[in-house]
Amino acid sequence: MARVLPLSKGNTLVHQLCCRFILRRFQSSSSLFSARRSVDSCSYSSVADIEVTEGYAKVIDGKLIAAQIRDEIAMEVSKMKSVKGIVPGLAVILVGDRKDSATYVQRKKEACESVGISSYEACLPDHSSEKEVLKHISAYNDDPSVHGILVQLPLPSHMNEENILNAVRIEKDVDGFHPLNFGNLAMRDREPLFIPCTPKGCIELLHRYNIGIKGKNAVVIGRSNIVGTPAALLLLREEATISIVHAETKNVEEITRQADILIAAAGQANIVTGSWIKPGAVVLDVGINPVEDADSPQGYRIVGDVKYDEACKVASAITPVPGGIGPMTIAMLLSNTLLSAKRIHNFW
Amino acid sequence: MARVLPLSKGNTLVHQLCCRFILRRFQSSSSLFSARRSVDSCSYSSVADIEVTEGYAKVIDGKLIAAQIRDEIAMEVSKMKSVKGIVPGLAVILVGDRKDSATYVQRKKEACESVGISSYEACLPDHSSEKEVLKHISAYNDDPSVHGILVQLPLPSHMNEENILNAVRIEKDVDGFHPLNFGNLAMRDREPLFIPCTPKGCIELLHRYNIGIKGKNAVVIGRSNIVGTPAALLLLREEATISIVHAETKNVEEITRQADILIAAAGQANIVTGSWIKPGAVVLDVGINPVEDADSPQGYRIVGDVKYDEACKVASAITPVPGGIGPMTIAMLLSNTLLSAKRIHNFW
Repeated sequence: MARVLPLSKGNTLVHQLCCRFILRRFQSSSSLFSARRSVDSCSYSSVADIEVTEGYAKVIDGKLIAAQIRDEIAMEVSKMKSVKGIVPGLAVILVGDRKDSATYVQRKKEACESVGISSYEACLPDHSSEKEVLKHISAYNDDPSVHGILVQLPLPSHMNEENILNAVRIEKDVDGFHPLNFGNLAMRDREPLFIPCTPKGCIELLHRYNIGIKGKNAVVIGRSNIVGTPAALLLLREEATISIVHAETKNVEEITRQADILIAAAGQANIVTGSWIKPGAVVLDVGINPVEDADSPQGYRIVGDVKYDEACKVASAITPVPGGIGPMTIAMLLSNTLLSAKRIHNFW
Repeated sequence: MARVLPLSKGNTLVHQLCCRFILRRFQSSSSLFSARRSVDSCSYSSVADIEVTEGYAKVIDGKLIAAQIRDEIAMEVSKMKSVKGIVPGLAVILVGDRKDSATYVQRKKEACESVGISSYEACLPDHSSEKEVLKHISAYNDDPSVHGILVQLPLPSHMNEENILNAVRIEKDVDGFHPLNFGNLAMRDREPLFIPCTPKGCIELLHRYNIGIKGKNAVVIGRSNIVGTPAALLLLREEATISIVHAETKNVEEITRQADILIAAAGQANIVTGSWIKPGAVVLDVGINPVEDADSPQGYRIVGDVKYDEACKVASAITPVPGGIGPMTIAMLLSNTLLSAKRIHNFW
C-alpha cells in the first residue's frame, strides 16, 4: 500500500457527489452526527436499489481538516522561526525511479513548502547499495537542521528494509516505523515519540469530528505495519474494543458488520460493500487503488477499499477517496516533523 | 496480574476433576480433538444444569507439557555445557519484601536448578533507589555468565518501571518487555529476540496440542503488556483473526462467544461463565486469582478467570488453574534463557 496517498486535483468525484447529505444518527448521543437533515440530497440514480435508503452518510472531509491542520502548523512554524530562529526540516530519501514514489516525494516537498518546513532530498539510483542509503541516513541523523527523516517505500528489492528503517534515529523517525516507536505504541502506559502518519490521521479525523472511540467496537481490515496494525493499536489506546481481520479471516463480513468504527486498509478496490457495514457505522477508507477508467484523461481513476455508493447509504459517516485519509496522511507527516523540531528544541 | 503463576502443589482440584473427559470435536478437522470418547466421564453432579451436556472439554495439561519442555531444556543445557563449556544463567532482581514476589522468585530459582541453568539473584530493600536497581541491571548486562535478566514486578511505587525495564539489554530481555522486542513482536515480518513468557506459553500449548490457529477467530480478554496485548499480537502473527476485549467493552459476552480460541487474561476470578464460550472453543485461562476457602489450610484457593465447571461443558479443550498456563510461563522463561545463551554463544 502506498504510504502517501495521491490527491488527484482533477478528481474530486466522490467528494462532490456526496458533499450534501442527509445526516443519520450515529450510535452515540454524544456524536456530532445528530439527526439534522440537510436541504439537498445526494443525486445518485441508484438510491432506490439499496436496501438502506433512509439517508446518506456524512462526509468526513479529510481535505478540509488537513487544510485546517496545515494552517495551524504554518502558524506554529512561523512562531518557532521568529521566537527561536529554528525552521523545522524534513529529509526524504528516495531510492530508484518509481514514478509513483517520485510523485509522493514531490507532494511531500510541496506540502513542506506550503507550511514553511524546509525539505531536503536525497535521490539515489536504483542500483545503490544499502551502505550508501545508510550513509545518507547517518548524515541526516547528525544534521541539526533535519528534524524528521523519511525513507520512501518501497525500497529496491536488493535492500533490507528493516536494516534501513532501523537506522533512522528514533528522535527523527517521523514515520513512526522504528520498532522502538512501534513497541511504545503497542505497550500500555508508554508513549511513542511518533505515531505512523496514516493511522494518526484516522484518529485525528475521528477526534476533529468529535466521534467517540472509547468503548466502541472498532474493526480494522488489514494488518500492515503501515496502517492496519498501528491503527488497531491506536484504537486500543483510545479504549475501543478492537478486531483485526485480514486475508486469512473466514467470516470477514460477519465481523465488519459489528463495527461501530470500520477502518478499511486492505488495499483492494471496492472490497467493502454496503452489506459489510453496520447501519450507522463510521467508515474510514484508507485504500488508494487505481482502476481503469476510459473517461479519465489518465485512463484510470483512484478508488478506495470501500464501495462508496453503497457504503454512504449505510454508514453514518464516511471518508471519501480521494479527499479523505490521503490529505490527512501528509498533514500528519508535517505535524510529526513540527513535533520533532519542538521536542528537539524544547519549544512548546 | 502476577507475572509468574503460583502452582500450589496442594491444590490440583480442577485438574483432578477433569483429568478424564469425553472428547468433543474441535471445529477444525485437522485438530487432534476428533470424536474419540474416553472411558471415564467427569463426575460433576451439576452436568444436567448446563445446556450443553454432550461432553466435557479435553484438559490441556500445561503441567505435563511444561515438564516435557523442561526435560528438553535440561538435555540442551547439558549438551551445551559438555560441548561448549557454557552454562546458561538467569539473573533475577527482586526489590522489596512482597511475599508473593519472593515466592515467584524462589520458584524460578528452583526451576532453573531443575534444568541446570545457573541462577543469580539480587534482592534489594524496598527503599532502594532507582539508581541502585539500574546499577544491578548494568552489572548483569555486562556479566557474560548471565544470559537472561528478569526484574520481578511489581516494583515499589517510587520507581519508574519503564526506565528500569528499558535498561535491560535487549539481548538479555528474556521477559520480552523491552519496547524494542515488543515492537518487533507487533510488526509483521520482524522477529523479536524474545517473546513474553505467558503468551508464548499459550501459543506453545496450542502448538503442542496441534490446535490450528491460522484463520481461527481468537479473542483475548485483557489488554495488559504482560499477557493480553502480546497474546493477541502473537495470535495475529499466527494468522488468526484477533479481537481484544477489556473493561471498556460493552458487549464482551457477545464477542467472546464468537471465539474459536479464547484467552482469558482479565485477572478477575470466574468472570468467564459458560455462556461466554462458543461450543467447541478452545479456552486458555491465564487468570490466577485467590478466593477465600475455609476448607483450605491457607484459607484461600487459586482459581482462574474462567468458571471451570461451566466452561468444561461448553469448550472442546481448556487449561485448568492451577496446572495450565502457570507451569508453561516458567517453562518459557527457561526456554528464553536457553535461547539467549544459544544465540550469544552461537550454539544451535
